[in-house]
Amino acid sequence: MTKIVILGSGVMGSALAIPAADKPGNSVTLVGSPLDDELVDSVQSTGMHPTLRVRIPDTIQTIKLAELDSELLASANVIVLGVSSPGVEWATQLISHCRASPDILALVTKGLVENTATRLPPLTYADSMKQSLPDIADRLVGIGGPCIARELALQFPTRVTFASRDISHASQLRDLLQTDYYRITTHQNIVAVEACAALKNFLCIGVSAMLGAYPQDDTHAKNPVAALFNQAVLELLILSRWISSSEPASSAEPDVAFDLAGMGDLHVTVGGGRNSRLGHYLGQGRRVNDLVRNDMAGITVEGVDTGRRLAPALSEACRSGTLDRQALPLTWAIINSIENDDLFAFDFGLLPG
Amino acid sequence: MTKIVILGSGVMGSALAIPAADKPGNSVTLVGSPLDDELVDSVQSTGMHPTLRVRIPDTIQTIKLAELDSELLASANVIVLGVSSPGVEWATQLISHCRASPDILALVTKGLVENTATRLPPLTYADSMKQSLPDIADRLVGIGGPCIARELALQFPTRVTFASRDISHASQLRDLLQTDYYRITTHQNIVAVEACAALKNFLCIGVSAMLGAYPQDDTHAKNPVAALFNQAVLELLILSRWISSSEPASSAEPDVAFDLAGMGDLHVTVGGGRNSRLGHYLGQGRRVNDLVRNDMAGITVEGVDTGRRLAPALSEACRSGTLDRQALPLTWAIINSIENDDLFAFDFGLLPG
Repeated sequence: MTKIVILGSGVMGSALAIPAADKPGNSVTLVGSPLDDELVDSVQSTGMHPTLRVRIPDTIQTIKLAELDSELLASANVIVLGVSSPGVEWATQLISHCRASPDILALVTKGLVENTATRLPPLTYADSMKQSLPDIADRLVGIGGPCIARELALQFPTRVTFASRDISHASQLRDLLQTDYYRITTHQNIVAVEACAALKNFLCIGVSAMLGAYPQDDTHAKNPVAALFNQAVLELLILSRWISSSEPASSAEPDVAFDLAGMGDLHVTVGGGRNSRLGHYLGQGRRVNDLVRNDMAGITVEGVDTGRRLAPALSEACRSGTLDRQALPLTWAIINSIENDDLFAFDFGLLPG
Repeated sequence: MTKIVILGSGVMGSALAIPAADKPGNSVTLVGSPLDDELVDSVQSTGMHPTLRVRIPDTIQTIKLAELDSELLASANVIVLGVSSPGVEWATQLISHCRASPDILALVTKGLVENTATRLPPLTYADSMKQSLPDIADRLVGIGGPCIARELALQFPTRVTFASRDISHASQLRDLLQTDYYRITTHQNIVAVEACAALKNFLCIGVSAMLGAYPQDDTHAKNPVAALFNQAVLELLILSRWISSSEPASSAEPDVAFDLAGMGDLHVTVGGGRNSRLGHYLGQGRRVNDLVRNDMAGITVEGVDTGRRLAPALSEACRSGTLDRQALPLTWAIINSIENDDLFAFDFGLLPG
């Protein structure tokens, strides 16, 4: 049996447990974070995941952190970081503490980390974990692509990318998790995949502003949304190349930004979820500070956090000429809304000819 | 004054007249096709365009074909082909007959033409017009990108691409038509732009099938749509490069398929219009022959016509190894629905790893 331990029983970690448990030969344990005790109680007593609203099959062992046998973690073949960004520190410390040394450490968590030592681009977890988990960082597999957790848990056809510097890790994890409904491609540029996965939340805010800014016929005008969707993908290309610029050059086509972790994931992110909701409000003339204190109080909007991590290094890169500010009008419009609490009033005249 | 004559008073030709007339220095005449007499009567008597449902300003002269002074056409600086595919022959004959020699002939019409002489890829109008309008084919400007006609007519922000082999023609037309809401980029690969503009209708059918195949919570599951949206853009890249393979190579980035005429236009096409409606039905288990005889009788579905033009040359290209059949699973699934009246049952296992 391949022992798969998923740390974090939120929607994405739990959803990933479904194909993992469907695949013969895997034993799957889903471990709640310190904040998940009540959620795990609910799964254990009802069989239903309360936020995913899906039945968790008995083949998945769902446990509280206190119920975790450190031997199980230490001997796991695959550990999946299934937490959101604020849970990364807890999960990495737990892995260190148990001296776990899995064949593969898979990353569902998306976000950027400030590169404090330098003025260089922000880091993805693929790089920051070289510090926090030096012994197993070379076995990281990043997961990107369009995947609404509930839909995966309901076994709707879903197609994602697994990325690792040594492609054999991504292929090995694919072979462990792929089912007829969970379809997996592999890629070597893990930094670009991680960068796109984080940045699409950020750029989604600007595209989704168009949903609020141009209401029409009980829905919204589609030309402005498509124009900024297109622009968002082009800026995703520039930003993800910048963040992954120290990775080995690849002639692989399409570029990550034009594939599942970029364009594909942006497609699913616009029109659903917290980042899109915030963007929609901005398009109606609301401001970020007002929203995070009122309508969206207590809700983590990952695209806002990503924007804050991005801003200082981006300013420096545009100042020094590493990046061309004119090529990133959507990025700057979102940054201004986040950092300066500006109204999001996108000027289509700024789009490059 | 720059004399702009638009042939065809359907939704797209009429919508384009709005920014054209907004721009100082243009005189704009909108000429109905032989089928548009009733429509023009309606515009002339009410001021409203009946299918666009938008007021046509007095600065646009809207006339029936019988009211067209051939001198006006002969002396036009810009002629716009604003008809749909079945009207192309009428419009090109009228241009020939009047010995019109505009500085620019702009193409709103989208479609493919069978390359009868050879087994080569189908032609776009950019090539087929070398035969029908040899004297002015070098002044063609193709128009692509995400543009719902009614939204342009309502002056919602819209961003498109103008393409011409000699880029100065595209730039000249951009300067004549660009307003604060109608934003225009330029491109040299007119064949790729025209190919993408036609093929996106065809590929939209397959993506939209996912809207019908996976209903969920009063709407539809989004993971399968995003997966096939992504796949459609990758196949658009392969097909548009094939069709434009005799054009001069360009290192311009992004490729047309990843920009407004490809990805951007596909974004707006999925979820609205006839091609998407047909695809939605296919996803529910209906068949093309049934649909075109019943629910969609009398409605031109351009993606179906494009598929029929594509099929013979595509078969040959895959047989001879010019194209890799495995890389085009979505294309073949749509072709099979159109040519063989097969059920559209897309197998996600066919998607390349």
